[in-house]
Amino acid sequence: MPRYAIKIQYDGSLYVGYQVQTNGPSVQAAIEESLRLMAKLPSDQRIDTVASSRTDSGVHALGQVLHFDYPAPIHPQNLLKAMNSLLDPSIRVIDANQVAEDFHARYDVIGKHYLYRIDLSDYPDPFKRLYTCHHPYRFSLERINQALKILEGKHDFTSFCSTKSDKEDKVRELYHLWAEEIPSHNELHFHFYGKGFLYNMVRIIVGTSLQIGDGLKEVEEMDRLLEVKDRRLAGPTAPAQGLYLAQIDYPQDPFKN
Amino acid sequence: MPRYAIKIQYDGSLYVGYQVQTNGPSVQAAIEESLRLMAKLPSDQRIDTVASSRTDSGVHALGQVLHFDYPAPIHPQNLLKAMNSLLDPSIRVIDANQVAEDFHARYDVIGKHYLYRIDLSDYPDPFKRLYTCHHPYRFSLERINQALKILEGKHDFTSFCSTKSDKEDKVRELYHLWAEEIPSHNELHFHFYGKGFLYNMVRIIVGTSLQIGDGLKEVEEMDRLLEVKDRRLAGPTAPAQGLYLAQIDYPQDPFKN
Repeated sequence: MPRYAIKIQYDGSLYVGYQVQTNGPSVQAAIEESLRLMAKLPSDQRIDTVASSRTDSGVHALGQVLHFDYPAPIHPQNLLKAMNSLLDPSIRVIDANQVAEDFHARYDVIGKHYLYRIDLSDYPDPFKRLYTCHHPYRFSLERINQALKILEGKHDFTSFCSTKSDKEDKVRELYHLWAEEIPSHNELHFHFYGKGFLYNMVRIIVGTSLQIGDGLKEVEEMDRLLEVKDRRLAGPTAPAQGLYLAQIDYPQDPFKN
Repeated sequence: MPRYAIKIQYDGSLYVGYQVQTNGPSVQAAIEESLRLMAKLPSDQRIDTVASSRTDSGVHALGQVLHFDYPAPIHPQNLLKAMNSLLDPSIRVIDANQVAEDFHARYDVIGKHYLYRIDLSDYPDPFKRLYTCHHPYRFSLERINQALKILEGKHDFTSFCSTKSDKEDKVRELYHLWAEEIPSHNELHFHFYGKGFLYNMVRIIVGTSLQIGDGLKEVEEMDRLLEVKDRRLAGPTAPAQGLYLAQIDYPQDPFKN
């Protein structure tokens, strides 16, 4: 069967997360249902999809990538149009391509970009309440960026990983982390670029960096947190609605022939 | 009792409209309930509010203005803070002031600004589905602006008024109408500035202007529509979610002392 890769965006506020779960609607279930309908399969069959990463309830995606094998050849542009006509407007397919039969949306990843958006308004912007975390306090952008810089490179990120994680190996490599203010939007944006991330890692780093930016913790606390490997000593997990899976990198862009 | 004016923003997608109705939550009910709680009134009493304009279900506000008489003197900044702490994050008070006891949020209006946002993406942006109307077709911005120009001035807008309106006098004065593309957001914005607007008037003008922009109708059709005074000959009513009550003008800014 031919293999296809698609790139999707979604508003995570309507879903229990990317992955199929029993407690509510998931992005994966919506995607697989649209494929099942397109392929005219009976309701007890499905087309399995593999995504680059799971996202939690409330977390958004600007460029999630997945692959699947489709029972018949289909032109990628027709695949994109058909899926978009079947999907709820909260999920959009923005790119599609046929890929090699050994392309794997998860195993082949060489880098992931996450964005975390913070609304700096005095009172939360009503139009951003599902799409940002609200933080109306004064902070030092310089301190935040000093703290983030400490985390770049290969480290054991146990302090920045949810205790619910079942991953044994907590060593990850982060390539580039930085924060910038977007004055025209009254927002603070955190950018994360790394090879892989642990469960809640981005959100715990954001929560800790904000404490450092606000002056509640020293910049050097980041060094100590890498050393002590204790989740309880890091800052709070920043809320899901500010987080976006922004971009997934592969050795070769699967959407360019 | 001292009179106060407040300026509010709201995400209309959660409400049946500004005004209190029996079929669901309204912005007005939320505002009046927050005032009742602040003033510690029993649940069968209320503080009446008067808004500059009603907005329909799904229509948003960036600068709706209302006034009310509050049973005790309160510092405007405390009023703002207390209301924001009681209101759902989908409604936010962005300004507050004590005003003259004869200030009237509706009767004193000298100008209203509406914004209409259109998402020009090929497929609707999942993050804008509640905040824009989607229009992926090619259009001529020049034709749209020529058509809008025809409507400036004092005219009988019967063709651009919902037949459900109970207003006898359909003459209104529009000061300035224009459309602009915002390439950085992939959006088309319509701006309306006038003394007053009829029921659904902005949305019917948008629907008609888009038909002219798309080449489905001639620019001169706007002249004819002003003449024939027949709603059935104008274009469709553009959807509510693209519309924003942007700004209300008074002879003196009630939020500046």
